[in-house]
Formats: sequence, structure tokens, C-alpha cells
Amino acid sequence: MRAYKDLSREELLTLKAELEASYEEAKGKGLKLDMSRGKPGVSQLDMGMALLDSLNSESDMKTLDGVDVRNYGSLEGITEAKYLMADMMGVHPENVIVCGNASLTEMYDAVCRSFTHGVMGSIPWCKLDKVKFLCPVPGYDRHFAITQHFGIEMINVPMTPQGPDMDMVEKLVSEDEAIKGIWCVPKYSNPQGYSYSDETVRRFAALKPAAKDFRIYWDNAYAIHHLYEDRQDEILDILSECEKAGNPDMVYEFCSTSKVSFSGAGIAAMATSKANMADIRKSLSIQTIGYDKVNQLRHVRFFKDYEGLKAHMRKHAALMRPKFEAVLGILSKELDGLGIGSWTNPNGGYFISFEAMDGCAKAIVAKCKEAGMVLTGAGATFPYGKDPKDSNIRIAPSFPTPEEMKQATSLFVLCVKLVSVEKLLADCQGA
Amino acid sequence: MRAYKDLSREELLTLKAELEASYEEAKGKGLKLDMSRGKPGVSQLDMGMALLDSLNSESDMKTLDGVDVRNYGSLEGITEAKYLMADMMGVHPENVIVCGNASLTEMYDAVCRSFTHGVMGSIPWCKLDKVKFLCPVPGYDRHFAITQHFGIEMINVPMTPQGPDMDMVEKLVSEDEAIKGIWCVPKYSNPQGYSYSDETVRRFAALKPAAKDFRIYWDNAYAIHHLYEDRQDEILDILSECEKAGNPDMVYEFCSTSKVSFSGAGIAAMATSKANMADIRKSLSIQTIGYDKVNQLRHVRFFKDYEGLKAHMRKHAALMRPKFEAVLGILSKELDGLGIGSWTNPNGGYFISFEAMDGCAKAIVAKCKEAGMVLTGAGATFPYGKDPKDSNIRIAPSFPTPEEMKQATSLFVLCVKLVSVEKLLADCQGA
Repeated sequence: MRAYKDLSREELLTLKAELEASYEEAKGKGLKLDMSRGKPGVSQLDMGMALLDSLNSESDMKTLDGVDVRNYGSLEGITEAKYLMADMMGVHPENVIVCGNASLTEMYDAVCRSFTHGVMGSIPWCKLDKVKFLCPVPGYDRHFAITQHFGIEMINVPMTPQGPDMDMVEKLVSEDEAIKGIWCVPKYSNPQGYSYSDETVRRFAALKPAAKDFRIYWDNAYAIHHLYEDRQDEILDILSECEKAGNPDMVYEFCSTSKVSFSGAGIAAMATSKANMADIRKSLSIQTIGYDKVNQLRHVRFFKDYEGLKAHMRKHAALMRPKFEAVLGILSKELDGLGIGSWTNPNGGYFISFEAMDGCAKAIVAKCKEAGMVLTGAGATFPYGKDPKDSNIRIAPSFPTPEEMKQATSLFVLCVKLVSVEKLLADCQGA
Repeated sequence: MRAYKDLSREELLTLKAELEASYEEAKGKGLKLDMSRGKPGVSQLDMGMALLDSLNSESDMKTLDGVDVRNYGSLEGITEAKYLMADMMGVHPENVIVCGNASLTEMYDAVCRSFTHGVMGSIPWCKLDKVKFLCPVPGYDRHFAITQHFGIEMINVPMTPQGPDMDMVEKLVSEDEAIKGIWCVPKYSNPQGYSYSDETVRRFAALKPAAKDFRIYWDNAYAIHHLYEDRQDEILDILSECEKAGNPDMVYEFCSTSKVSFSGAGIAAMATSKANMADIRKSLSIQTIGYDKVNQLRHVRFFKDYEGLKAHMRKHAALMRPKFEAVLGILSKELDGLGIGSWTNPNGGYFISFEAMDGCAKAIVAKCKEAGMVLTGAGATFPYGKDPKDSNIRIAPSFPTPEEMKQATSLFVLCVKLVSVEKLLADCQGA
């Protein structure tokens, strides 16, 4: 394969004509594919159906410590659910609050609470002229949407395969009191699938923030979402690392079973220090009498324990692998050596991150859409929807079938090629 | 029966000695009764167990319009749940958002959203020097806790059997731009069990608030919670009344199945104008991808429709009536004519409101507690926990059995008598 940049203008023009013909043909197929979000596929959801049998009209509705889950109370969740979610995050159960159906809501609430009431006695952010968050990029669009919604200024921090650029994080956090938080997906990051190295986690734990109310928003969304048996990432427990480093209160950790049981009907949890929990409780006890404990019990009865969770996730992995492999295989076969894109090959999580040539991402996404395939909007992986290089595209293989993923990826590489050729031609015209 | 106030000092002293002896005896019984909260009783919860069978591993998990409830999406709830909750509130489904497990959380979020982002473009309340709410009293402590949490000044408005003092509401709301809301439990109010008259609802709908972002927080918590077949309160639909009066956006209505299916594992809903819904959606779409649709579907499959809900609530009524009657019978038998207390006799809801002699409520609640019975804290039915007359006590008969309610009420009337005698003796000593 010759890299596109080494082709002559004439060769590029010939190639463009061929690609355009293929693209017209692809459009004619009337595809309808959605790779826009990290939605579980139907087969994966089917695997969780027995969850619905774990409680029925004959069930004992009391927890191990005698709480009737049908009634009011237990603000911080039932004990056995705390244990389950603690194991999932690798933390102690006494640091866990088991919540409602979505960790996203817990993150929103955490930011909102800080905005309205401050953090452990600090000035509420709504009273401050300026609040800033660090945002490792590319990252998760819904994180950025929360901070944007509260008028929080977002600062891009580049991601590396070991995690965010920690030199930059350390410098900014220690110098600027307006920086109150950082969004992290520490394991199988969204969208790159990178996992933070031990050194990164330790440097996080040892941060010396200028703001006392600085918190690390540690979204451990893919804690048990491995794709392979023999290639699994593990990360250090940030809570205990923070404690060791003398920063016990510096982190809010989040996780959920949205991508384990049912999306939107799972259970979510938060883990943090006792002092943070006491602070959170002040608002939480006003906001709710308690989360849905019946669903918490349903999950515990179904999964039983951490081993049960892991066994279930092995079944998910068996479904997900062929989808990822379909994408990776075609990307490699079609694009290796062309110099028009690179991509990640994660050991887990829900996404593959694709780096197109600068200035090409929007055009590629638009071309795909025109031919019937919806991708996550270009730019969505950056704060304010602005990818400075217009190069990052998030590929979400979870929802379509492996067969559809092949079709989708074939269309995708075609669009990448076409847009890249157009870009190179425009560049040499401009030169 | 002679009224206590007509007894001589000597007669009061003799009575006091008798009552004290009875009280010591009662204390000796080692009772453990909890009438502090409006918690459903165990038999009532047992009635809802078939809810858990309405979805199992064989169920069709699609809604009537084809949404897979196990996956992400449907921010405003599934269509059939909208219809069910709309019927419960007596509103149109297109005005309904079906939410999570608690209407309290929806109310908190509604206040919080106004605080952080304003209401339909108004200045966010966090930027204002002063925000006030009207609070019909006695009322629901958790409402007052929300407004207090956000630093909102609460103004007491007296309740009448027809609803809040509307002369006062109209005057205050029209004069003071800082008044942004009023807490209402329009049907079987907490704690008195009063229902707003048609005139009251129409006067609400016709309010001319000085503040454009004034909203009526209409907590229709007991919409279908009748106690009797032949004595049922009905109230006008505030949404359509507001629309008729040219104030379509003035109300947020809330309800839930917390006291229909399971407390804390039911489904909640909000009803409001299309314009308010569009405004709310801006925050809601950041806060969540969607509520628990599986539980929404579970409820619809179980209750089927409004008739199903009503049939279920007739069974609840059959359980609740003997508890209410146990209380009312003993109150009447023991206190009629003594002039030391009055109480409500509601047609529905969860509470009986007791008015002791001024200055006696705290002492009665303390006496009950000393003998093993926990009541809602005296003062809890008023903003800031301050009952200006120290006279109101909320009785919650829902959780104990009828037999326990008899024991509890016997102890209660004993404490009422004893504290009243002590008060009268202290008063004549003071005079």
C-alpha cells in the first residue's frame, strides 16, 4: 500500500473517481445503521432477562439485615448492594452509596450540589465568578454537557495511552483555584479505551490542588467491561491511593450496571470518603427518602456477588468481541499503510477511537450519514463540541450485530478514504 | 363529660394523679410503636406483590410503540405510563413526564432547576437576594425541608377545610415579586386530609403573580387514596383551570405510585404545560438519559389502566379504614367534650391532624415517646419546624396494625389528657 500523501494529483483524481462510484453504490443500498451511542445490543439485553425472575410475588422482600425493600428508607442503599457495587469498584462497602438507575444522574447531582451548596463548607459555585473543569480529550460528551450546563469553563487536557497529560494536570490544578474538578474515565476510557497507568493514578492521588473543593470525578463506567480473557486492564483503587497520599476527600467515584444488566434500569453507585458522604447526605436526605431498593435487591439476588458479575460479563464479552473484531479487521485491512487514519485497539469498554487526518472528521461523519449510517457527531468527544483538529471520531460497535458492523465499517472506511482524497486534493490545489 | 377548663384546681389535681398512675402503667408495658411517618403497612405492601410477576424473563419488553424498555432513551417516559399517570392526575398524557421512583425528588429537582437555571428564561434564583415560598400550614415537612435547603424564605398561610386562605395567597402573590412558589397538597392534604374546593382551585388558577416565574407546586400525592366508597373528595384539574384562566404555565403537578405499589419502588410523574416541559427538558436531557422504563412497564402491565388502579386502591382502603376508625373512635370516646383537643376526620389520604391546646403539642409528643410511641415531631408540620402555637400533631395510622393503632391511640389520649391538665394547672398557678 502506498500512503495517500505520496500519490500524485492524477493518481488521487483517479482514486477519487473510483471511490465516488463505490460511494454511490453504497448509498443505493439504503442502509440504516446506528453507531452513534454506546447502546447495548439486543442479544446482550436478552442475556439479562433472568434478572426479572430474581424477584417475584413469592420472594422474601427483606434484606440480610431485615429491611423491607418495599417500604421507605435506607437512604444510602441496602447493605448487600453496597457490597456488590463496592466489589465492582474495588473499594470498601462503607464508602458506597447505592443510588438510582444512572450514574450520569449522580454525576449531574454531584456537580449541581457543589453549584448550589458548595463542597464540605466551601462557597457554592453559583456564588463564584468563575469555575473551571479539566477535561481529558477526547472524552465523554455527556460529562462535558453537565459542566457546560452549569456554565463551567472547560479546559482540554490531552489524553495519552497512560491517561491524561499529568504534567499539565498537576500544573493547572496547583496554580488555579478556579479549577474545581476533572472528568476521568480511568478504565477503558471513552472513546479511546485507554486505562490509566499506576503512575497516573498515583499522580492523581498526590495532586496538590489550589482549590480545597477540587474533586476528581472518577467515572469508573467500564470497571468490569473486558473484551478478552487474556488481555485485561486493571487500575489502582483511587480512593485508597488518595487516602495514602493524604488526600482522602479528593475523589468522587461513580459506576453502574447500566451496561451490565439493563441500560437505564440498572443500579448506580458512588464511592467516596466518609467526610464526603456526610456532606452529600445533607442534600441527599432532602432530595429523596431513598432510591429504588427493590431494584437493588433484584440485582443482588440475580448476580449474587462479584464472581456472578464477572461470569455475566464474560458472556457479554463473547458478544462484543466479534463486533470489535469486525471493525478492527476491516480498518486494518483497508487503511493500514495509507496514512489517512489511526485507531485504538482497546482491551475493553464500549468504543474505538478513530483519528482521521486533520480537518476530516466532520466531513467523514456527514458522508456516512448521507449513506445511512449515524455516527456520534464529530466534535462530540470534545468540550463545546469543538474538536480543534477536527480529527476524532468515536466508533460505538455495541448496538449493531457483527454483520451490520462489517457493513458499517466498510462504509466508514470508504468515507474515510473519499474525504481524505478530497482533502489532499484541496490541499495541493491550495498549495 | 365536663370540659377540663371548668374543673377546679382540686379536681385537676385529683385527675392528674389518676392520669399519672395510668401513664406509669402504660410505660410499664414497654410499647414500641411508630406513627412518625406515612409509611404503608406490611399487609398493604403484600397486596402489591403481584407487581413483581408482571414482568419476567419471558415477557415482551417492548412498549406499544416499539420501544425496548431495557435500553437507553425515552427521556420523558414510555407512552403507556404517560397515559396511566395522566389518568391518575386527571390531565392529558401529552402534559406528562414519567420519572423515577419518587415525586419528592421531582419536586426537589424542580426547585433546584429554578435555583440554578431559572424558569423559562427568568433569572436563576441563586442570583437573587431573596426568594420566598408560601407554605399552607400545617403542611408536609419534606416540602418545607426542600425550600429551607435552598435558603428560600417560607411564609405561613393558614389552611382551612376548603384549602389555603386564598385572600392571603392572592394578596401576597400579587404584591411580592420575591414570592416564586407555593406548596400545595390539594387533595387529602398532609396532615389535615382537607381537599381544595372548586372555588379554591379556580382562585389558584386565576392568580396574578407579580413574579413571572411563580409556580404552584401541586403535589397531588393522594389523588386516588380514598378511604370510603361513599365519601370521596374530588378536585378540579388545576392544569386545565390554569389554561382557561390564561395562566397555562403557572403550575407544576406531581404524583407517584409510592403509596399505590411500593414506597420508594413506584413510579413518579409530573404534569405541566408544553412550554414548561420544553424548559424542563433542557436540564433533564443533561441530567439523565432516561428514567427506569422497565419499572414503568412493570407498573402498566400490572395495573393495566385507571380502573385497575382504582380497584387496587379499594383494597388499600379496606386495610386503611379500620386503622383510621381505631384512631377516630378512641379520640371521640375519650376526648369529646373535654375541650382539650380537636381533630380532622378525612375522607382519604394518610393522616389525621390533631389540634391540642396551645403550648401542648411538644409535651404530648415527648410524653408519648417516653412511653414507647414515636410520633412525627411536634412542629414538623410547619416551616422551620416552628409551630407558632405549639398545638399541631400529625397522626399517621398507615403503618401499625389496627390493634396497634388502638393501643397507640389510647396512649396518645392519655398523654393529651395529662399534658392538658398540667398546662391548666400551670396556667392557674401563673394567674
